[in-house]
Amino acid sequence: MISVQEALQTILNSTQNFGVEEISLMQSVGRVLKEEVLADRDFPPFNRVAMDGIAIDYALFKNGQSSFKIEGIQAAGSGQITLQNPENCIEVMTGAVLPNNTSAVIRYEDVEIKDGIATIQINAINDGQNIHEQGKDKQQGALLISQNTIISAAEIGVLATVGKSLVKVARQPKVMVVSTGDELVEVDQNPLAHQIRKSNVYTLVSLLESLHINSDAAHITDDKQILKEKIKTYLQEYDVLLFSGAVSKGKYDFLPEVLEELGVEKLFHKVAQRPGKPFWFGVTDTFGMSEQDVYQDEESNKSLSDVEVKDNVSQGVNKRSENKSQKNTIVFAFPGNPISTYVNCLAYFYPWYHKSVGLKLEQETAILGEDLSFKPKMTYFLQVKLEYKFGHLVAFPMRGNGSGDLASLVQTDGFIQLPSDQTEFKKGAVFPVIRYR
Amino acid sequence: MISVQEALQTILNSTQNFGVEEISLMQSVGRVLKEEVLADRDFPPFNRVAMDGIAIDYALFKNGQSSFKIEGIQAAGSGQITLQNPENCIEVMTGAVLPNNTSAVIRYEDVEIKDGIATIQINAINDGQNIHEQGKDKQQGALLISQNTIISAAEIGVLATVGKSLVKVARQPKVMVVSTGDELVEVDQNPLAHQIRKSNVYTLVSLLESLHINSDAAHITDDKQILKEKIKTYLQEYDVLLFSGAVSKGKYDFLPEVLEELGVEKLFHKVAQRPGKPFWFGVTDTFGMSEQDVYQDEESNKSLSDVEVKDNVSQGVNKRSENKSQKNTIVFAFPGNPISTYVNCLAYFYPWYHKSVGLKLEQETAILGEDLSFKPKMTYFLQVKLEYKFGHLVAFPMRGNGSGDLASLVQTDGFIQLPSDQTEFKKGAVFPVIRYR
Repeated sequence: MISVQEALQTILNSTQNFGVEEISLMQSVGRVLKEEVLADRDFPPFNRVAMDGIAIDYALFKNGQSSFKIEGIQAAGSGQITLQNPENCIEVMTGAVLPNNTSAVIRYEDVEIKDGIATIQINAINDGQNIHEQGKDKQQGALLISQNTIISAAEIGVLATVGKSLVKVARQPKVMVVSTGDELVEVDQNPLAHQIRKSNVYTLVSLLESLHINSDAAHITDDKQILKEKIKTYLQEYDVLLFSGAVSKGKYDFLPEVLEELGVEKLFHKVAQRPGKPFWFGVTDTFGMSEQDVYQDEESNKSLSDVEVKDNVSQGVNKRSENKSQKNTIVFAFPGNPISTYVNCLAYFYPWYHKSVGLKLEQETAILGEDLSFKPKMTYFLQVKLEYKFGHLVAFPMRGNGSGDLASLVQTDGFIQLPSDQTEFKKGAVFPVIRYR
Repeated sequence: MISVQEALQTILNSTQNFGVEEISLMQSVGRVLKEEVLADRDFPPFNRVAMDGIAIDYALFKNGQSSFKIEGIQAAGSGQITLQNPENCIEVMTGAVLPNNTSAVIRYEDVEIKDGIATIQINAINDGQNIHEQGKDKQQGALLISQNTIISAAEIGVLATVGKSLVKVARQPKVMVVSTGDELVEVDQNPLAHQIRKSNVYTLVSLLESLHINSDAAHITDDKQILKEKIKTYLQEYDVLLFSGAVSKGKYDFLPEVLEELGVEKLFHKVAQRPGKPFWFGVTDTFGMSEQDVYQDEESNKSLSDVEVKDNVSQGVNKRSENKSQKNTIVFAFPGNPISTYVNCLAYFYPWYHKSVGLKLEQETAILGEDLSFKPKMTYFLQVKLEYKFGHLVAFPMRGNGSGDLASLVQTDGFIQLPSDQTEFKKGAVFPVIRYR
C-alpha cells in the first residue's frame, strides 16, 4: 500500500500529451489555449476618442481661446477626418479616431454648444486629455494571452479582437467510463429488492463534463470473459479508462487480473487513504501495441518496456490515429463506493488531466472549522461544507455514514485532505482542500 | 446618478420567474433544481454487505466457534439467500444483500480458507460489523436534495439513484445580446484603420454560457430607425436584452430614447461607479403588451402601470408563450467599453439571474493585498489577481489603462468592490469581490 503522495506522483509521471486541435472561437470556452495570442495591431489601433464631446487643437486653448466653431463630426466607424482650420473644433464620439490636427477632447458635460459654436466651460484642460493613445494598452506584437491558459469569457473577448475565429486548444483525451457490478440497473428501471440503480457512471461523466471532456460510458456484467473482451476493445479505442468497482477482494472483482492479462502494467493497487483505498492504477506499455504502432526511432526503442511518458509526449501528437490521441491507455480503476469514486476522480484524475493539458497544478487550502481526531495511519479525505468568512475559507467537517453514503455529497462542497502522519487536527489549522462546487 | 446599492436593489426588484421545465438527467448539470428529491427507498435499501468476506451468525462466534464451513456465496445483484445451518457461513461480496440468518461480516483479510472451511484469524468481532444497515443513510421519503440547488456531479449521482431520468429545473430566460457601434467589424474580417473587431458580444455570450444560458446575438448599426425596428421585435421575443454601447452622450447613442419610445420604462440611467457608469436599466411595463397578454385578474389590474414583479411571478409560468417565458422584458444596456460591459454583467445581470431562478445571493469577500487610494465618490470595481494563501483569499490590484483595456482582463481573476464612502483602502481590509475565474 502506497501513500497518497506516492500515488499522485506516479499518476503525474504518467501524464500524456493529446496534441492540439483547432476549434471555433465560441466552442473554445473552458478549453486550454495552445498558442500564444499576440496583438495583431496596436491596442488601441489608433488615437481613440475616449469621451463624447469636441476635439480641439490644445495649443489654441492654451493661448486663451475658449470658443470653437464646429467644423464637422467624427463618428465611430468613420475614416479619420482633418480639422481644416485650427481655430475650429470637431464633434467626436467615443470609439472614433481622433481627427487630424486635434490634440485634446473636452466632454459634452464641460461644453456649451449654441449656434454651431462650442464654448468650453472649464479652465483646467490637459494636452491629450480623453484620448486613448494608440498602442497605450499593448503594442503590436505584444503577448496578450500565454499558452496553457484556460479560456474564459475574458480571453474570448481578446481572441475576438485579434480575429481568432479559430483557436488552437489542447485536444481532450478520449475517455470511457465503465461501471461494473451485477446489482446495478438503469436509472429508468425499477430495481428489485437486492438491486440498486447506477449512479457512479453518471457522476463520473458529470465530473468529466466539468473539464469539458465528453466521455462515453458503458456497463459490464461481472463475467470475466465478457469483461476481458470489452476492455480489450476499449484499450484500443480510448486514451483513458475510468472504472468504478470490481477492484477489491471480492470473488467477482476480476478487474485487476483482467487488466494485467491484457497487458496493462499495474503501477499501484491500494493507497493509504480513507475512503477510496482499493484504487488500482495502470498504463498500457508499448509491447501491447500492434507493430506499426510501436515507435521506430532510436530513443523509444531503448525504452519499449518502460512507461516513457516524456518521450511519448513529444512524439505522440503527430502519430495519433483519428480515434485515439495516444498509444498508451491510462487506466484509473476506482473502488465502487460512491464517495470513493468521487474523491478519487477529483484527487487523481483531475490533476492528471490538468498536467496532461499543460495547466499548472494549484493547491487550494482551507481552515479547519472544528477539532477532530482520526487515528488510522492514512490520509483522510473528509467531506466538508465550505464557508467564506471575511476573506477566509473555512471548512466544516460533515461525517457521513461512510463511503457508501452518496446522498451526503449533496450537503458538502469538498474534501479536506488530512495528512496520515497526524491523528489530532485542530480548529484553525490549514489543510489542502479539494472543492467540487 | 444612483448608487451601486440602489441600482442593484432596483434590479433585484425586477427579477422574474421563468417557470419550470423537465429535461433529461445528463442535461441538467449546472441548472437549478425545481423539485424536492426524496428517497424512493431506504438508503441503503437492504442490509448491505460492506466488505468482501464471510457472513456468520454472530451468536456462534460469541460462543467460541471460529471455524465455519462455507455453505454458499451471496453475490452482489443476486436475490437474498439463507444460511441454512447456523454453524456454517456464506461468502459475501461488497454490495450484496446480507444473507438471512447472518449478523456479522468478517473480511477476507481476517479469515483463512482451506478445504471449504473459513477460520477467523482475529479475536475482536462486533455484532453487525461490516454491514451497512438498511435505512442508515436515509429513510424512505427523506429529503435528499432541496429545491433551488444548483445541480453538480454530486446531485447527478443522487438523482440517478432515485430514478430521475427526467429532472425539473428552472427554465432559462430567453436572452438576446446586442452590440452597437459602426466601428465594429466581424471577427473574421480585417478591420480598416478606423475600425476594430467585435468583442463584447462574444464576451457576453460566454458569460451567459457560464450560467448555462444559450443566448442569441446580433449587431445593429447606429441608425435610429433600424435600431428601433429591430429592438421592437426583440422585445416581443426575448425575456432579456443585453446591450453594449450607445448609452452615453454621443450623437449616435440612440439607445435610451429608442427604448423609451418603445415603452421600456427607464428605472435608472447612470450609476456612481467606475468603470461602467452610463449603465441604463429598464423594464417593459404591461401597458406595452397586446390586450390578451394583460393580466385580467383583480390584483394585477390595480397595478398595471407598476412593475409588479411579485404578482407576475406567480402567474407568468402558465401564461408564457412558447418563445418567451415572461410578459415583461428586462433591458440591461451596458456602456460599450469592454471592462464596463464585463463588470456590469457580473455585478448586475448575474445577481438578477441568480435571484430569478431561486438561488440565494452570496457575497464572496477577499483581503486587499496592498494599500490604495481612490478619490472619486464612486464605487470602484478594481481588477484584481486573486491568490489563495493559507486559507485566505488575497486580492492584488492591477491597474489597467482604463475601461477600454480589454487585454487586462486576461491578467486578472475578478473585481474587488471598493465602497464610495471611503477614499483610502488599507492592505488587510476585507471587501466584496466578484470572481470570474
